Amino acid sequence: MLTNVIEVATGDRLVTDVTDSIARFCAERGDGLCHVFAPHATAGLALIEVGSGSEEDLSDLLDRLLPRDDRYAHRHGSRGHGADHLLPALVSPSLVLPVLNGRLALGTWQSVVLVDTNVDNPRRRLRLSFLSSP
Amino acid sequence: MLTNVIEVATGDRLVTDVTDSIARFCAERGDGLCHVFAPHATAGLALIEVGSGSEEDLSDLLDRLLPRDDRYAHRHGSRGHGADHLLPALVSPSLVLPVLNGRLALGTWQSVVLVDTNVDNPRRRLRLSFLSSP
Amino acid sequence: MLTNVIEVATGDRLVTDVTDSIARFCAERGDGLCHVFAPHATAGLALIEVGSGSEEDLSDLLDRLLPRDDRYAHRHGSRGHGADHLLPALVSPSLVLPVLNGRLALGTWQSVVLVDTNVDNPRRRLRLSFLSSP
Repeated sequence: MLTNVIEVATGDRLVTDVTDSIARFCAERGDGLCHVFAPHATAGLALIEVGSGSEEDLSDLLDRLLPRDDRYAHRHGSRGHGADHLLPALVSPSLVLPVLNGRLALGTWQSVVLVDTNVDNPRRRLRLSFLSSP
Repeated sequence: MLTNVIEVATGDRLVTDVTDSIARFCAERGDGLCHVFAPHATAGLALIEVGSGSEEDLSDLLDRLLPRDDRYAHRHGSRGHGADHLLPALVSPSLVLPVLNGRLALGTWQSVVLVDTNVDNPRRRLRLSFLSSP
Repeated sequence: MLTNVIEVATGDRLVTDVTDSIARFCAERGDGLCHVFAPHATAGLALIEVGSGSEEDLSDLLDRLLPRDDRYAHRHGSRGHGADHLLPALVSPSLVLPVLNGRLALGTWQSVVLVDTNVDNPRRRLRLSFLSSP
């Protein structure tokens, strides 16, 4: 299996577009499935449209669903960090994408984004793996 | 890799059962994994029981989590369309299913449904891909 | 494809750590992807940190998102059982994990957990499947 770990500079962003990095990994690989995996306990992967406001809307949604207050039993780290640890239950860190002739077969408005509510880690890793059929 | 795109008539339904179409794609393919992918920015895939009220309950749930009002930064399309663009962050458009001897190995009460809050697109596509092992 | 069904004793727990069982299935299998699938209509799979309070936090989150009251159209089973049937729409019962040299390539704080709000079924099954590349 072709597999590789890439680094992603997330800075203090909630949403980081990683589509191009994945596309480069898949280039010239033929047909198959690309597995994208974030080996972090406070990050997830999503397919959304970027550049039209949905990043901000996703931030608001997560603030509503996972308020950053003192309600959490998980109390390591800064205030509200317990919320970060629930993110991957709703936005999974594991995602499979179709690849055709070395190209990601995404819809016109789909981008792959790393969602990371934990601003204390400005760099994240992604493991990319490619599987084809015999 | 065996891969194909099918069309799904969703009409104005939130939930469309696509289990039979996927089962037909997998028939006579042996053992492997079937990847189901909706190449749309406002649709997701879920495994739920159908025919017992959960479709209506899912509609209510999404109305609660993603209210169709003016809160969204994403303002293209009709009122509340920003909500549609958050759906795939919660209900992923990518789903992998086990296949045994050409049959989907689902649980008794599991059906694969396309979830689509965007009623402006009465037809949707799904890319189905089948991977087996050497 | 190497595939197997394991039994998981969930008792009345919402969250059951199944990482070790999956790791045993993958041992000595080389590089590939492990697909974990819960063939149940009221269960999901998540990657979270365990042992630091997030199990309790996840329980609170699901109580907020899916209150166990009389609002549901799905009325089989005990009060609030309709909530159980919405769980897999938010926490998918299908999960893919990378395997390197027979070992799950998870992050330090990631554990695979079976999430099951339905306390009426103290035993659950998981189908594990392993795919490698030619």
